[in-house]
Amino acid sequence: MAEELISLAKLNAASKALEFINDAEIIGVGTGSTVEKFIQVLTDRKKDFRDRIFVASSIDTVLKLSEAGFRVEKTMSLKSIDVYVDGADEVDPELNMIKGGGAALTLEKILAYYSLRRVFIVDYRKLVKELGTNHFIPIEVLPKALGMIINKLRNLGYEVRLRYPLGGKYGPVISDVGGVIVDVFPEGGIKDPIKVDAELKSLPGVIGTGLFIKLADHVIVGYADRAEVLKP
Amino acid sequence: MAEELISLAKLNAASKALEFINDAEIIGVGTGSTVEKFIQVLTDRKKDFRDRIFVASSIDTVLKLSEAGFRVEKTMSLKSIDVYVDGADEVDPELNMIKGGGAALTLEKILAYYSLRRVFIVDYRKLVKELGTNHFIPIEVLPKALGMIINKLRNLGYEVRLRYPLGGKYGPVISDVGGVIVDVFPEGGIKDPIKVDAELKSLPGVIGTGLFIKLADHVIVGYADRAEVLKP
Repeated sequence: MAEELISLAKLNAASKALEFINDAEIIGVGTGSTVEKFIQVLTDRKKDFRDRIFVASSIDTVLKLSEAGFRVEKTMSLKSIDVYVDGADEVDPELNMIKGGGAALTLEKILAYYSLRRVFIVDYRKLVKELGTNHFIPIEVLPKALGMIINKLRNLGYEVRLRYPLGGKYGPVISDVGGVIVDVFPEGGIKDPIKVDAELKSLPGVIGTGLFIKLADHVIVGYADRAEVLKP
Repeated sequence: MAEELISLAKLNAASKALEFINDAEIIGVGTGSTVEKFIQVLTDRKKDFRDRIFVASSIDTVLKLSEAGFRVEKTMSLKSIDVYVDGADEVDPELNMIKGGGAALTLEKILAYYSLRRVFIVDYRKLVKELGTNHFIPIEVLPKALGMIINKLRNLGYEVRLRYPLGGKYGPVISDVGGVIVDVFPEGGIKDPIKVDAELKSLPGVIGTGLFIKLADHVIVGYADRAEVLKP
């Protein structure tokens, strides 16, 4: 029952997001369970959107959009994106976010950053007073720097866990862009996400972090019976 | 004749660097023509250094060290490095540097950053009053973000050139770690290298920059008849 309500909450957020892509030619699409709902509502209105160009933040989303009959372009040839729609793992009152539970953080941040408008769709459980409440910070690192980065992070006082898949592959999770995903647990929470992000990004070999600072123009929060739009 | 003098200058710098690795167990080695001289003088004194562990910033250096009979370890399993020795393309009076002419900037910066002591060996021509005098800034970017990053850099006022090999491969240079090398020409020079580095690094999809800020503990400057050691 609770699961059905959450599924409904995600669907309500995803449906509302359609209002933000009406005038977009190039639409970026993120990754995850809420994005799946978005692809679902998009597919239900395929006739309105089949002439658009889509770009995806993951192999998973490329496949899902292609299967649904949409035209998916390579990100490499793009200069910018009109609207980006993605989920998030945690959202704080300033609409800073943690993302990367699905290991797609690097390309998600790239698509968000180079988009003219960024819309994030979440169910109500993702709202937190402070980032780090329920979620660690995923980072992506170059495999060749793995040992040095983990050692440095521990010296800086972070708890660090290499992320492993639940099955299907020996050894750590490798992202779609070839990095290793490391989950970082800041001691005592994330009081200052900008500072933590700067510290993590300053380490050579870190390709990207799951802290999304000032990258949301709109956050659509889904509830079982409605969707609410937040702005920073 | 001029070439011979420069070759001698590089050799003098490389020879002097041996004094800095005497007590090191794990020695990081960079990439380039001055580093080749370093591997040469190291090989001449092989009996003193053959029990050390070496790590290399490039495929080229892995091969050269291995061929010379040294033991080269994977960087992935390291926690830190005792001494790192590398060349540089430009060095300013504060010993900030531009590196990356050989496309090895990302791993070079990783090895430098996680080393306890960093020694750079250059011939006298590499000293400049201001970075950018004779050299552009190489950056390494994720291929998937290429078009968006180039567009953004141009909007920020940088002149940007994708680096192409002189032969042997169609299309842009790909580094040993899989990124595309983009050469960035700041309009009006690099007055504030810290600020320029921060701006370039802030762009998602940039894996690393060739601006090496506060990463030199010693710069050994070679001349045809001597070597001088600079400290910041």
